Amino acid sequence: MNDHVSHMLNTDSIEQKWSDGEREIVRATYRVMVEHGYSNLSISKIAGELGKTKAAVYYHYDSKEELLVSFLDFVVDWFKNDIAEEISESPETALNNVVESLIPLELDDETFHGQVVLLELRSQTRRSEEFRERFTEINDLLVGIVRDIIERGVEAGAFRDVEAPRVAEHIVATANGARIDRVTTDRPAAPAAVRVSLSSYIDSELRQHD
Amino acid sequence: MNDHVSHMLNTDSIEQKWSDGEREIVRATYRVMVEHGYSNLSISKIAGELGKTKAAVYYHYDSKEELLVSFLDFVVDWFKNDIAEEISESPETALNNVVESLIPLELDDETFHGQVVLLELRSQTRRSEEFRERFTEINDLLVGIVRDIIERGVEAGAFRDVEAPRVAEHIVATANGARIDRVTTDRPAAPAAVRVSLSSYIDSELRQHD
Repeated sequence: MNDHVSHMLNTDSIEQKWSDGEREIVRATYRVMVEHGYSNLSISKIAGELGKTKAAVYYHYDSKEELLVSFLDFVVDWFKNDIAEEISESPETALNNVVESLIPLELDDETFHGQVVLLELRSQTRRSEEFRERFTEINDLLVGIVRDIIERGVEAGAFRDVEAPRVAEHIVATANGARIDRVTTDRPAAPAAVRVSLSSYIDSELRQHD
Repeated sequence: MNDHVSHMLNTDSIEQKWSDGEREIVRATYRVMVEHGYSNLSISKIAGELGKTKAAVYYHYDSKEELLVSFLDFVVDWFKNDIAEEISESPETALNNVVESLIPLELDDETFHGQVVLLELRSQTRRSEEFRERFTEINDLLVGIVRDIIERGVEAGAFRDVEAPRVAEHIVATANGARIDRVTTDRPAAPAAVRVSLSSYIDSELRQHD
């Protein structure tokens, strides 16, 4: 659902926890990374994007590292709030929505670059234990959402009695692999192929056929 | 199969195409990145690792960028040569070997860091069209290997008549997602769960049951 990260910048659902100042800075950080990439990010570029001084940024965050951890917390929060909307549907529809959301057929430019930014940050998990914690949280969250939908479907008799945790890991790994392939290679047909195969897997492995 | 990248450093199968000097430099580059990460890589660190001068490195490569592209060519070549060994088996065994090789249950430290290095380079595909070409080649290669095995299995009557290209994209995306999850999160049980689910998928979707 990283394709919704751009949308995240406009969401109101997670406003409570963040001060206006923090939210503004985190959004500016995201825009700078989308435009210049993670490795060219600097506090002065963020301040420039905000039309403020570096001191105004440092008032909220002691370092670029701390700011990026805050950005990832924002992403985690966004996942928590926004995905919850999709799972109120029937298990079949909910699972379908999640797969479509994880592997959209098209990505606009900003979302594309947003996914590259998340991949750049993900590749830095060796350098920062805090980054690693956030990506652990994001993957746990996604797998938990898919697992809950499957368990709900099994209980309701819509799905066969599968090992929900394993199948959820499989679905999320497939979607993550397809997402990363899309933003790092020139293989435009691959995401749709994966999505069709994954949907057919869900249909034949999970769905209870009469 | 990136878990075999370390093994690549010792393989003799791809010696023909590379001069001794190039091979030495590429191997040293890999060792430096495994130890210090991609973002701390410098020509002087590579020279230090080799016990040579920077001029000796620049004799072969004009820039760090050119050297890294050469490193990725080395990885592509390694994939081409080494994976060929695994596919001489029966389709069922070959597919099983490929899945085990793509999602090993354990990773030693060096291989783990080697996968992080490849992810770091992969996340740079926006900055370098040449990086993007190499990762396109790697994914095409993996999907092609899996697709050929499936097609061989369909012809031999061992597999059902599935859409081999789609199923191959699905299997490779799943394996890539699991590999990246492993090196960027603390979710130690995830790779095994994905592998079990993927194997069970292959068994129920592909294998021709009597």
